[in-house]
Amino acid sequence: MASNTKPVVSFLGPVASYSHQAVRQVFPEDKWELRPVNTIDGKYVFDEVQDRQVTAGVVPFENSTNGSVVFTLDNLADRDGRYKDITVDGEIFVDVHHCLLGRKNPAGKLDESHEASGTCTPTLTDPSPSKPKSKPLSSLSHIRRLYSHPQAFGQCNAFISTYLKGVEIIDVSSTSKAAEIVSQDETGTWAAISNQLASNLYGLDMLGKNIEDREDNTTRFLVIGTNPAVPDDWDLQKLAIAKSGSKSLVSFTVPHTSPGALADVLGCFREFNLNLTSINSRPSLLAPFQYIFFVEFEGHKYDDPDGRVKGALEKISRVAHNWRWLGSWERYR
Amino acid sequence: MASNTKPVVSFLGPVASYSHQAVRQVFPEDKWELRPVNTIDGKYVFDEVQDRQVTAGVVPFENSTNGSVVFTLDNLADRDGRYKDITVDGEIFVDVHHCLLGRKNPAGKLDESHEASGTCTPTLTDPSPSKPKSKPLSSLSHIRRLYSHPQAFGQCNAFISTYLKGVEIIDVSSTSKAAEIVSQDETGTWAAISNQLASNLYGLDMLGKNIEDREDNTTRFLVIGTNPAVPDDWDLQKLAIAKSGSKSLVSFTVPHTSPGALADVLGCFREFNLNLTSINSRPSLLAPFQYIFFVEFEGHKYDDPDGRVKGALEKISRVAHNWRWLGSWERYR
Repeated sequence: MASNTKPVVSFLGPVASYSHQAVRQVFPEDKWELRPVNTIDGKYVFDEVQDRQVTAGVVPFENSTNGSVVFTLDNLADRDGRYKDITVDGEIFVDVHHCLLGRKNPAGKLDESHEASGTCTPTLTDPSPSKPKSKPLSSLSHIRRLYSHPQAFGQCNAFISTYLKGVEIIDVSSTSKAAEIVSQDETGTWAAISNQLASNLYGLDMLGKNIEDREDNTTRFLVIGTNPAVPDDWDLQKLAIAKSGSKSLVSFTVPHTSPGALADVLGCFREFNLNLTSINSRPSLLAPFQYIFFVEFEGHKYDDPDGRVKGALEKISRVAHNWRWLGSWERYR
Repeated sequence: MASNTKPVVSFLGPVASYSHQAVRQVFPEDKWELRPVNTIDGKYVFDEVQDRQVTAGVVPFENSTNGSVVFTLDNLADRDGRYKDITVDGEIFVDVHHCLLGRKNPAGKLDESHEASGTCTPTLTDPSPSKPKSKPLSSLSHIRRLYSHPQAFGQCNAFISTYLKGVEIIDVSSTSKAAEIVSQDETGTWAAISNQLASNLYGLDMLGKNIEDREDNTTRFLVIGTNPAVPDDWDLQKLAIAKSGSKSLVSFTVPHTSPGALADVLGCFREFNLNLTSINSRPSLLAPFQYIFFVEFEGHKYDDPDGRVKGALEKISRVAHNWRWLGSWERYR
């Protein structure tokens, strides 16, 4: 049973979210307490970690279809210094498979001729719409409302435009929240784009499975903490899978009046032969249309035998404004 | 009256949107037909322009508080070649001032002691919440539901958390759509974050004015077309305001296996002393976690006396994959 001595990892809740799946992949429940944080903007995971109420936190960073998760970038930007001790200590990849959850149509049987034909209607603006890669598991003709997170709608366009034409789309804060709302529906006409974990938790019927547009729909999560020197005890992945190098993340602003300032900073990585793996920007909020940049690159601050990371960071400290090393971690695949 | 010979500029509708305001700033209605396009994802502005159904289109590109507008980046990414003839021919800056629109509380009078005190409740996680910069114009104690676009909620955090605590937040596709929905409310308890144009159009009461968090809340729109050689007849701004240089936009992908490939491309701009003014990335959708990059820089492809833009573009064509010049335009301030 639960022990008071177990360290806690918090994640963007509610339970049965994809963040919950990510945590379960690497934090074994016999050694960790997994604590959902139920806020819309995910800010409180950062707060709990900064205030040492928990040992680690897990936050979504980017999805392979939809791109960056803006609220996590904004927390990492840390414009008012609230999260000054937080570092990124790891990453978790979760394969995202969306399900359509709801109540089976008691009257309906699957009409193969029409609704399960798998064809979108070609239109002038979209003459060759992409085909959904899966069919409904039962009739959807009774569905009037569809709840999910905006990112999930964006990942299931073909299925929705083929099998759920004209259904009312309602944005909610998470895919598991969508399942929770649908579980309270008494009309039987609501459905949620959610996941299998939520189907079990809320006792909903599986009306469709793997309804995402693309096979390779993956979300990358970051593990954050405040003790970067000892980030290793959370990661059980490494027992099973091979190490494949390391990555680091830095943020910086550049002098607005200096031509080529951004290229100068990025040149620091090239000079030390460090490969950039991602770049993002967010408004600095210091002045309109000035930015804070986030650069990920291959290399580890504390495992740097040839001094390339050290060399690049030293040079960046001279050409960038307000730069910050946000963390280094091992990659496992 | 309307003439069939007037050129058409389309914008992301409905009428009274901020896009509508942007169009009105530079396209005089005696010379242009201003046509709203009522889709959620803004895709059809690109389609109408590509298919020559209209002469120009206006799309939101970035907001100084919230950052980039993802659906416009995705249209510019043009992953399936649908928009191959479209170029960016100009930009429009709109100062965004949000209003709270609804019905005045017939029973309520403004309770200065409580609801108009202008204080947010400090909490453990936010010990010094930012103060809203404006007060309500009338009592808000009857408001139960608040409609707006997610970007507008993000720009009015302080006002909402001070004066509209506990109110149900409902995302809709545009700020003017929010006003339209609230105009149909028969309970008098709904409100919308929208703009003054919508207040007039839908006959709603102004319950709050300039409720945005920041003074410098500006959205930048792009003007798109298919005839970059003659982009000048739309721009009446230039009669009144000074030219302040020019900008260009390119997109590209980089070889995934080549270390420093992104820095190599950005180095092309530095080599020719061209200042970068923004950089964005979106998933390439060719493989997970590969990106298409968008870089804006100072300089004009067709007004390039010292050949620096030509030199940089030639070099980019050798080091980038799938690069595209998306347009050059004059800046006016």
